[in-house]
Amino acid sequence: MDSLLLSRRDLDFLLHDWLGVSALTRRPRYADHDRDTFDAVLDLSEAIATRHFATHNKKNDAEEPHFDGERVHVIPEVKDALRVFAESGLTGAAMGCEIGGQQLPHVVANACIAFFQAANIGTTAYPLLTIGNANLLQAHGSKEQIDTFARPMVEGRFFGTMCLSEPQAGSSLADITTRAQPQGDGSYRLTGTKMWISGGDHELSENIVHLVLAKIPGGPPGVRGISLFIVPKYLVEPDGTPGARNDVVLAGLNHKMGYRGTTNTLLNFGEGKYTPGGAPGSVGYLVGEAHQGLTYMFHMMNEARIGVGQGATALGYTGYLHALDYARNRPQGRPLSGKDANAPQVPIIEHADVRRMLLAQKSYVEGALALILYCSRLLDEENTAEHEPERARARLLLDVLTPIAKSWPSQWCLAANDLAIQVHGGYGYTQEYNVEQFYRDNRLNPIHEGTHGIQGLDLLGRKVVMNGGAGLRALLGTLATTCARATEAGAEAAELATRLEQAATRVERTTAKLWSTGDPATALANASVYLEAVGHVVLAWIWLEQFLALGNATDDFHEGKRQAARYFFRVELPRTGPQFDLLDSLDSTTADCRPEWF
Amino acid sequence: MDSLLLSRRDLDFLLHDWLGVSALTRRPRYADHDRDTFDAVLDLSEAIATRHFATHNKKNDAEEPHFDGERVHVIPEVKDALRVFAESGLTGAAMGCEIGGQQLPHVVANACIAFFQAANIGTTAYPLLTIGNANLLQAHGSKEQIDTFARPMVEGRFFGTMCLSEPQAGSSLADITTRAQPQGDGSYRLTGTKMWISGGDHELSENIVHLVLAKIPGGPPGVRGISLFIVPKYLVEPDGTPGARNDVVLAGLNHKMGYRGTTNTLLNFGEGKYTPGGAPGSVGYLVGEAHQGLTYMFHMMNEARIGVGQGATALGYTGYLHALDYARNRPQGRPLSGKDANAPQVPIIEHADVRRMLLAQKSYVEGALALILYCSRLLDEENTAEHEPERARARLLLDVLTPIAKSWPSQWCLAANDLAIQVHGGYGYTQEYNVEQFYRDNRLNPIHEGTHGIQGLDLLGRKVVMNGGAGLRALLGTLATTCARATEAGAEAAELATRLEQAATRVERTTAKLWSTGDPATALANASVYLEAVGHVVLAWIWLEQFLALGNATDDFHEGKRQAARYFFRVELPRTGPQFDLLDSLDSTTADCRPEWF
Repeated sequence: MDSLLLSRRDLDFLLHDWLGVSALTRRPRYADHDRDTFDAVLDLSEAIATRHFATHNKKNDAEEPHFDGERVHVIPEVKDALRVFAESGLTGAAMGCEIGGQQLPHVVANACIAFFQAANIGTTAYPLLTIGNANLLQAHGSKEQIDTFARPMVEGRFFGTMCLSEPQAGSSLADITTRAQPQGDGSYRLTGTKMWISGGDHELSENIVHLVLAKIPGGPPGVRGISLFIVPKYLVEPDGTPGARNDVVLAGLNHKMGYRGTTNTLLNFGEGKYTPGGAPGSVGYLVGEAHQGLTYMFHMMNEARIGVGQGATALGYTGYLHALDYARNRPQGRPLSGKDANAPQVPIIEHADVRRMLLAQKSYVEGALALILYCSRLLDEENTAEHEPERARARLLLDVLTPIAKSWPSQWCLAANDLAIQVHGGYGYTQEYNVEQFYRDNRLNPIHEGTHGIQGLDLLGRKVVMNGGAGLRALLGTLATTCARATEAGAEAAELATRLEQAATRVERTTAKLWSTGDPATALANASVYLEAVGHVVLAWIWLEQFLALGNATDDFHEGKRQAARYFFRVELPRTGPQFDLLDSLDSTTADCRPEWF
Repeated sequence: MDSLLLSRRDLDFLLHDWLGVSALTRRPRYADHDRDTFDAVLDLSEAIATRHFATHNKKNDAEEPHFDGERVHVIPEVKDALRVFAESGLTGAAMGCEIGGQQLPHVVANACIAFFQAANIGTTAYPLLTIGNANLLQAHGSKEQIDTFARPMVEGRFFGTMCLSEPQAGSSLADITTRAQPQGDGSYRLTGTKMWISGGDHELSENIVHLVLAKIPGGPPGVRGISLFIVPKYLVEPDGTPGARNDVVLAGLNHKMGYRGTTNTLLNFGEGKYTPGGAPGSVGYLVGEAHQGLTYMFHMMNEARIGVGQGATALGYTGYLHALDYARNRPQGRPLSGKDANAPQVPIIEHADVRRMLLAQKSYVEGALALILYCSRLLDEENTAEHEPERARARLLLDVLTPIAKSWPSQWCLAANDLAIQVHGGYGYTQEYNVEQFYRDNRLNPIHEGTHGIQGLDLLGRKVVMNGGAGLRALLGTLATTCARATEAGAEAAELATRLEQAATRVERTTAKLWSTGDPATALANASVYLEAVGHVVLAWIWLEQFLALGNATDDFHEGKRQAARYFFRVELPRTGPQFDLLDSLDSTTADCRPEWF
């Protein structure tokens, strides 16, 4: 608790009492691990995050990276922290031994990462992008590509990026115009401009491995003509070291409200500043097959979306712990029952409204952390469950949960940060305290890796209807299983189960109703509302799951969890009623509002 | 529309079609005015706000005021803008001719101020504090105090502050420790430290007039022993010019997430740096009677609370206009019905989810502006209605509405700014655009001049129950009158009225239920939820009022207003259902959560 990053007590509860992570060590992939190695890597992560990451979080915000026209300047603490991170082997925590990884379950590795996100989201973005990049290459790259680019990333020598958006095409990837011209030697030359590229330039690593979406001339139009390329900042010599400068040129940094520690760049590919091999264009190498780029990129995108949700969760969580710490220690005012002006002031946690704000935060951030770890646990299931049907079920459920795991924490852990400021009063609004930065940092999360709007379309337009509705059935079946267990677990659990069953029924009915007209425009007009409502139902399920895992223990930790579960069911879940009502009415108020009426 | 501050079309609708402001000119106080003078001062305000205030809004954020240990440095544009403001006579816009004011109705004067708040909330805070200060002195000061301090403020030579909070006592004024020792000459010497003082030091004016809450030794404990003092930065010479330096010393500036253009200070009174008249302590002059300070200060506080709500509204409004402008001009993606990759991209306003975000903003910001102007109109009624019962009714209703007018825009126009960022996508998160600053600036508004929590206690604990429930009856009676008119105004208006009547009934029932136990702790445990729910009901009423004022006109402006009203009733008002349910259950989930459970 001293570092105020995440509650290790809560993490242990989630990982062990709830998700039974130790049981994973019976699987061949994790056979070298046990609870002790899990504990050790979590201890190590918390310690490094506290000592090397949290310590420069404010400084990297106040002295954000700047570009002098030639080079990007980043405060030196960042490079030092990332060196410690890489040397501790955390880049490859979840990767296989064959590439130098620690072969930990994703659920454990991601819990480790969450400490870093809570400590310093800006600095942590560099290794996270690198991990996602390396994972994609391991899944879809050639052996040579893995050895040349992925392995140095696992070693922490190279960093990675993902280059999708362009100035004229943010979320609309069909409209990208970056071109990749095939060369005689099997390589390509790329020309185009990429926007919003996090970690797109810096001097923190020996090399930067860009994964770039581009179109090969003559390919199909729209998203079916997108291919994926490796474009390194420096071409790699046969001995694996960086060589000639490739023609990837920083055109400028975006200066942001928060998340300032991560450089965010506009990159020109093939602008002609460098001519590697004496020819124009930036050198790129096709990953996998031509025109399959978006499919491959979604490998990284889905991982990144869970990562965004986890980052939002970590920021919400550390904000909550800061607010709690403040509320316990700040004396102000007196109880309503005893307004004796001569009595000493009480800590503000004694005020009902402060406890309301703390309990709301607790229900959001602990709920979000549980959801995120559950998703990581599904990833382990997808990868290592013994039987294919189990793997397929995990994959399906993870697919459905991904837009929720991305968007729900982005919305509600930002709301938690808002409440953390409010608990601090005026102090929370000043740069002297930490919570205003969490709030600014967290505001990015509903935007990047697909906005809320995009996630809503993904959930309602794709995930719940895919395979004839198998996605929705997988979700509802999972909820029903929990409810069945809860019904046997005492009166209070059974009562919560009844409320969750009612909410699940509404999800089912509303989904059918929305698609009943067969018109996508009608179905999807309020997709964001659907995303929010289903998200809250999923979180109620997550809270019921936690409630069940509490058993009969009655110490403060368990009572607090129980109370947060009650809060979620009493205060939060009912919010969905009017949302489902609106959806059921096929409301067209916004769709009917003509642009000229504004 | 070009300046993107406020919609003048909307303002004219609210002032004239709805509030019938021109009719005020039949009252003696406003007899020198007519629609033309109202229009002229609005035109002038928009022009000055656009040319002199909006132009340095970003700069004053990026280059915030700093203190070199001796002086506070503010960018020169601020002083220039404030000179133009004062020279235009806007400081005294609503004040009487006897003090050099323009004697405009408050509703018109405040509409003028809203342009400045939208353009640059940081710079505008200086004259707003000054106006509130001068108004308090005119109401409670002696003739000599008015001449010495208020008149130079109206002329723009002196600026004013309000000094309430102290480091150990933010919202808890009973605990202030600043002391005022009476001197032989009728003056006082003050010693103590005041925190969060906006405009507390700068070199923008000849003098700064602090209104300071302090305790005279030997007075009653708690809030009943608080007196109010004028403490000028410079003592004023007999000829009205600033003379010797008083012992008010800047101890430091608070650096904030937003609202950076306004210096926010920690002030030491009587620290001994200066010894005016050769004696220790800062010289202060008692306003009115001893121990009545809080009552007087509430004169300024109530005005300031409406001002905070109006500032929040203005920030939300300008953010909405920026988002609308962006949405009309940014091409991205294609309609769901025609995903032809070869077709050109469409402006994002064509997407249903973008229109949802715009319509939500429109319903929040236009609703908030209407509420705020209604409150200003009540102030005019309180001051100038012919008969005392009308004045009393206006005073009562304004009392009840004040916590809502402060908190509702602070919450929902901040939500509007959040949506404005979302409409902009990644661009909205960058400092290149304006909306991220609006969001940061607006985040102060739920905190200062009484937090949400304080407003909730004020509404439920005081305003609705005062005078045997007269406050609540005044509010509900007003809603009922509107509903009765709506019932005669066509089918759609009647349907909206039915929904509002149902909601009003819930307000009445829930208030009674909450107080049914007689225990304030039970009644007030969820006062913030009550504040939110009643706030939404009040805004539904405001939207029904606007709907009625639209008549049968069907141009784009009127259709847009109508659609925003529908949106509010269909999407927003239903949010209150679960809130009333929770309140009706006398829910004690947060009250029951013990501090050690967190």
